Amino acid sequence: MVDKPVAEDKFSFGLWTVGWRANDPFGDATRPALDAVEAVHRLAELGAWGVTFHDDDLIPFGSDDGERQKRISRFRTALDETGLVVPMATTNLFTHPVFKDGALTNNDRDIRRFALRKVMRNMDLAAELGAKTYVLWGGREGSETDAAKDVRAAMDRYREGIDTLAQYVIDQGYDLRLALEPKPNEPRGDILLPTIGHALAFISTLEHHEMVGVNPEVGHEQMAGLNFVHGIGQALWQGKLFHIDLNGQHGPRYDQDLIFGHGDVLSAFFLVDLLEHGGYDGPRHFDYKPPRTEDIEGVWASAEACMRSYLLLRERARAFRADPRVAEALERSRVTELSQPTLGEGETIADLKADRTAFEDFDAEAAAERGYAYAQLSQLAFEHLLGAA
Amino acid sequence: MVDKPVAEDKFSFGLWTVGWRANDPFGDATRPALDAVEAVHRLAELGAWGVTFHDDDLIPFGSDDGERQKRISRFRTALDETGLVVPMATTNLFTHPVFKDGALTNNDRDIRRFALRKVMRNMDLAAELGAKTYVLWGGREGSETDAAKDVRAAMDRYREGIDTLAQYVIDQGYDLRLALEPKPNEPRGDILLPTIGHALAFISTLEHHEMVGVNPEVGHEQMAGLNFVHGIGQALWQGKLFHIDLNGQHGPRYDQDLIFGHGDVLSAFFLVDLLEHGGYDGPRHFDYKPPRTEDIEGVWASAEACMRSYLLLRERARAFRADPRVAEALERSRVTELSQPTLGEGETIADLKADRTAFEDFDAEAAAERGYAYAQLSQLAFEHLLGAA
Amino acid sequence: MVDKPVAEDKFSFGLWTVGWRANDPFGDATRPALDAVEAVHRLAELGAWGVTFHDDDLIPFGSDDGERQKRISRFRTALDETGLVVPMATTNLFTHPVFKDGALTNNDRDIRRFALRKVMRNMDLAAELGAKTYVLWGGREGSETDAAKDVRAAMDRYREGIDTLAQYVIDQGYDLRLALEPKPNEPRGDILLPTIGHALAFISTLEHHEMVGVNPEVGHEQMAGLNFVHGIGQALWQGKLFHIDLNGQHGPRYDQDLIFGHGDVLSAFFLVDLLEHGGYDGPRHFDYKPPRTEDIEGVWASAEACMRSYLLLRERARAFRADPRVAEALERSRVTELSQPTLGEGETIADLKADRTAFEDFDAEAAAERGYAYAQLSQLAFEHLLGAA
Amino acid sequence: MVDKPVAEDKFSFGLWTVGWRANDPFGDATRPALDAVEAVHRLAELGAWGVTFHDDDLIPFGSDDGERQKRISRFRTALDETGLVVPMATTNLFTHPVFKDGALTNNDRDIRRFALRKVMRNMDLAAELGAKTYVLWGGREGSETDAAKDVRAAMDRYREGIDTLAQYVIDQGYDLRLALEPKPNEPRGDILLPTIGHALAFISTLEHHEMVGVNPEVGHEQMAGLNFVHGIGQALWQGKLFHIDLNGQHGPRYDQDLIFGHGDVLSAFFLVDLLEHGGYDGPRHFDYKPPRTEDIEGVWASAEACMRSYLLLRERARAFRADPRVAEALERSRVTELSQPTLGEGETIADLKADRTAFEDFDAEAAAERGYAYAQLSQLAFEHLLGAA
Repeated sequence: MVDKPVAEDKFSFGLWTVGWRANDPFGDATRPALDAVEAVHRLAELGAWGVTFHDDDLIPFGSDDGERQKRISRFRTALDETGLVVPMATTNLFTHPVFKDGALTNNDRDIRRFALRKVMRNMDLAAELGAKTYVLWGGREGSETDAAKDVRAAMDRYREGIDTLAQYVIDQGYDLRLALEPKPNEPRGDILLPTIGHALAFISTLEHHEMVGVNPEVGHEQMAGLNFVHGIGQALWQGKLFHIDLNGQHGPRYDQDLIFGHGDVLSAFFLVDLLEHGGYDGPRHFDYKPPRTEDIEGVWASAEACMRSYLLLRERARAFRADPRVAEALERSRVTELSQPTLGEGETIADLKADRTAFEDFDAEAAAERGYAYAQLSQLAFEHLLGAA
Repeated sequence: MVDKPVAEDKFSFGLWTVGWRANDPFGDATRPALDAVEAVHRLAELGAWGVTFHDDDLIPFGSDDGERQKRISRFRTALDETGLVVPMATTNLFTHPVFKDGALTNNDRDIRRFALRKVMRNMDLAAELGAKTYVLWGGREGSETDAAKDVRAAMDRYREGIDTLAQYVIDQGYDLRLALEPKPNEPRGDILLPTIGHALAFISTLEHHEMVGVNPEVGHEQMAGLNFVHGIGQALWQGKLFHIDLNGQHGPRYDQDLIFGHGDVLSAFFLVDLLEHGGYDGPRHFDYKPPRTEDIEGVWASAEACMRSYLLLRERARAFRADPRVAEALERSRVTELSQPTLGEGETIADLKADRTAFEDFDAEAAAERGYAYAQLSQLAFEHLLGAA
Repeated sequence: MVDKPVAEDKFSFGLWTVGWRANDPFGDATRPALDAVEAVHRLAELGAWGVTFHDDDLIPFGSDDGERQKRISRFRTALDETGLVVPMATTNLFTHPVFKDGALTNNDRDIRRFALRKVMRNMDLAAELGAKTYVLWGGREGSETDAAKDVRAAMDRYREGIDTLAQYVIDQGYDLRLALEPKPNEPRGDILLPTIGHALAFISTLEHHEMVGVNPEVGHEQMAGLNFVHGIGQALWQGKLFHIDLNGQHGPRYDQDLIFGHGDVLSAFFLVDLLEHGGYDGPRHFDYKPPRTEDIEGVWASAEACMRSYLLLRERARAFRADPRVAEALERSRVTELSQPTLGEGETIADLKADRTAFEDFDAEAAAERGYAYAQLSQLAFEHLLGAA
Repeated sequence: MVDKPVAEDKFSFGLWTVGWRANDPFGDATRPALDAVEAVHRLAELGAWGVTFHDDDLIPFGSDDGERQKRISRFRTALDETGLVVPMATTNLFTHPVFKDGALTNNDRDIRRFALRKVMRNMDLAAELGAKTYVLWGGREGSETDAAKDVRAAMDRYREGIDTLAQYVIDQGYDLRLALEPKPNEPRGDILLPTIGHALAFISTLEHHEMVGVNPEVGHEQMAGLNFVHGIGQALWQGKLFHIDLNGQHGPRYDQDLIFGHGDVLSAFFLVDLLEHGGYDGPRHFDYKPPRTEDIEGVWASAEACMRSYLLLRERARAFRADPRVAEALERSRVTELSQPTLGEGETIADLKADRTAFEDFDAEAAAERGYAYAQLSQLAFEHLLGAA
């Protein structure tokens, strides 16, 4: 029996996920528009805890102030009625043609200024609705030809942009942290800050680096063939996993945004294991797309499936960690030994250099013969994943 | 006419490149061993400026001190005779079975200690031979199953290892900077610090981060489908491009180490353009493999080809930058406008917020209509590349 | 100087290429609709020879007969005025939501029947307009989960569909050949007949296999990391290269449809070389997308760029083939020796088995030592490509 | 409880799998040589049914006749003692340097002749040992530069080679079928017949095409990002799945040869489902590599893991097919409807054309609205895979 989702699970969904009308590069929309209020109610019924949004998901681009207030107010009522929270918000800096060359790094300065203002405006709303994280996905920051973008100038502008927005949050006294979302390509040929690593590196150069982290998405790293669990491990290690986007992907190809669990299952298992046992206590945010083949019933089934998959994998990961055979196997593979510092307590470099057992008298051949028993450990994980261990 | 390579071009080759005996996962060596002294002489004749090495390239693993000194001495003589310099050295932490689970992040602490000592020993030699850069490629730091490696513990050990080595350099008074070389996979299923970005991010956490940079390799980033020119742009922007490995690759697949230029030609063109016009003045180091089909004549032809390709691309890149039509096209595409800060001089965030032209009165539709003329710019680059502009 | 395109070059463009309004999965259209008549006139001015279309490019889905006739008639007039031919036509079986699970292999039989009729109807028009090739791209024939499609049943239906359409062509006495266009994924998670190979294999099972060939697209094969030139080589060898789609791509990622030449340049060079010297005399059809950043001026610049790139590469390929050093290099690499049968004229298997020089007395070590001089040959090609040989 | 492997499961292993000494492109062997006789005994103890080999696995290249007979005889004894069968054999045409440019398509005619003889000789042994399938993996048939190989000449030689070998089998009266094993790249830059599709297409051109099929390998197709289950589906549909190589892979990268099940788990589930319920009754052959980190104990653990994974997935697949909710879901998704011909019994094309319900009166909008319920079906499969349904 899979657990039912409850608020403590911190499952959240973007309005744009269940609300995706399923137009793709080769096809028109297959589903009618979904009212945000209905989305909130249905997600609440399914057991979700939070809902997130781009400014334009809630308030169509170009709406006047009256329309804007009306829509915000309806949304607030739905939140109140359901108890759903808004843990995160973000800005749409990619749909409107004005952003065709990017937002914060658009070659056109006027558009860069417009983009900053668009973000600031939605930060006001995010803060008002109680969001704690503000995501920035720079999906249009990039190029199709290397001639089109001076990367170093682009990085200057990117830094200027994020520094400005962080300062704005501070100036306004908002309780918001920023989270950058990396992606290697699509919709641009090559996107700046293509991976978790590039984003973390960039963040280290920021004025207010302490309030900026990352919002990695499963599929985005897997589009570059990278190990998502390793990436999350590094982000956690650097104290920068501010938020996470869960979905599925089948390796390097277009961004599939599959139901969580319906891509690389083994990686999903180890991801849930890491999130549950690695000290992350933020939202479990699903950023996926209900398949284009589905009607509205399939949409809700897909949202439910995301949560069920997570809960099922959590159950499997808990059993894995609780199994004494696993503890023994980790010991045997010396996984635990890696937590031991390489130098002894108080050992200096000179001491290490003087230690003949470390080099001159070290028997490399003997050490090379020891097996790591990873085959056994890996199979144990596989069998736990399949509920057979 | 392609220029002849001269010392000022700073072309360098690893001993392991021309010396590769051409064994691969499915085949035995096709070429006899190449003496390091012969390699130095032949590279010098071809116009190379420098030669680099792993400890074990020069002195076989397990050699006694007498053998070691003899080999170093012969190598020094060859350097003296030819005038070749040793701009960089590195450690082989991957061939011997003892490193099958890694070196600085091996689960086995004894092996981690051995690895540190192996690096320190070769740093002594590197310093003695006048190298300025010490490269660390952690090709075995990784795993095939996520169960086998606690990534956060591994990152702790990796940091401890690099901090220790940096401190050693300082303690010894060596004039060496460290350069980490990222790679996503092969020979491990997933390697830690898989891209330029991850390495830069990791470096930002180091105690002596100022003396640690990166040594990116063309093929390694392209194995992850990433834009190498963008990666180099970010590394330069962060002041961290300490060294570079030039070769060729055909996208995500095994590490091909093709002759420079014989992979993604357009990317190679923009790379040379960036290196030549972006302020990088370090070595142009070829880390490639002469094809396994080649005899020793083909080996030297391939080394020559690397340099010729670079010089030819440099010629094309110079013509591109000197062409007034290019300057005009860059202007038209507003590439130059990206260097202009987004906020005006002295403009505050409050000023920006108060600027109605930036948002309320901004005509997004009109701005969206402007074309960027990237098609024209891209074609101009293409025609310059082909020597037809 | 690059040649100007002329009719003999057989350059053709899809109406949907220059007419692409530049909506993508994350963005709205950036360009207004382009009238087919204007497209024809502008393409003619640029030197194109032919224009191709999907039924819905010319006549919007659901148009009544009057509207249909009006549009066909305007199009015909434009063709007459410009002299442009219609070498190929195809069916849109992917944009309308009805095709969300495919056309010829849709799980829904009614939709399969509708799809067949839609193709037949446009075949009538294709024949009327003088097309010689009818392309079938099954972009929606596939699935996102393996549970959703019984591949063998799908192949039965696919064969039934193509057999039916081929029979229709015969019954109607049309002078049309069918060309299947493979693609590995996007817009479906996995598309049936994902590569040139799978399509050729499928064709071998058809009743009217002799009238069905392939229409490979550069980017589609490169999305699977496959060598396009090899694929075209096999298609030519099997006598099945009925048509070709030229564009550019940067390896496994979303379908980029770049300007021809602006992707893998080395592959484009060898492709043009093969098309020009390998006996293909069909259309050089550009199936690309003008970048989304471009206005209409950029659209026409991009169309011109496709043709210029081809002509420039043709010039380079011709010089390559005419260079006596190349002939010599091919000889030295024994490329020519591969045309010689392995068995001698009249040699039987028994003779081969009795030939001790072939095995018992064969000196494998000596044969293994011979180098193939591919490094030199490859560099010669590279330098010809860059106009420097 | 996972079933124990028994002979009826038809599990077989290559001698080169458990016997892999674990040298890789960057590292030396980590394990001692494994005697073939020991391998046979241990595999038998673990429950394997068959063992397969390359000629050189059993008899080192260059052995004299006495050595050869001695080794064959010891092997035969081990087979007799254990009851293991030899369902398949193959030729090593890739390790020795003589094959550095390929075997059947080597530019050097003498080497092509030698290769044919090497295959013929091992076919004799294969027949003698009772093998029913002879595999040909052309891992070295390919190139690193398109200039090096005239693909059409190479295809001529490839066909000549396979036709010759097929004729040899006929002439000798052997009960052997040939199975070609495709792979996209590694160890060559690009390998001829890169996918299942290309191999099937090539086979259709052979003189004795009826006795030639394919031996697809999980990882080889996944290295090209292709759906392995779809590929196997097409091979089965064409009656050409003669043999199969089971292992694991993480998408486009080097050939990982992981333990079966330790790669794309979802795909492995659907693969086992297809093999078990799709009419394939040949061997379940594991072509994997015990991880390089493992000692001999890990080697046997990995072999056992391959079989356990298969059996566990088989159990999951059986439960999936037996579940009435699955039958219902397949019906609802109209998966079953795809088996129904698109044209009615006896319906002619003229009838179809005259059927107004198929086109003129077809309500495309209404048909488009129907959902396919794939989200639900996909989740049902996921939960069955995890043993939770």
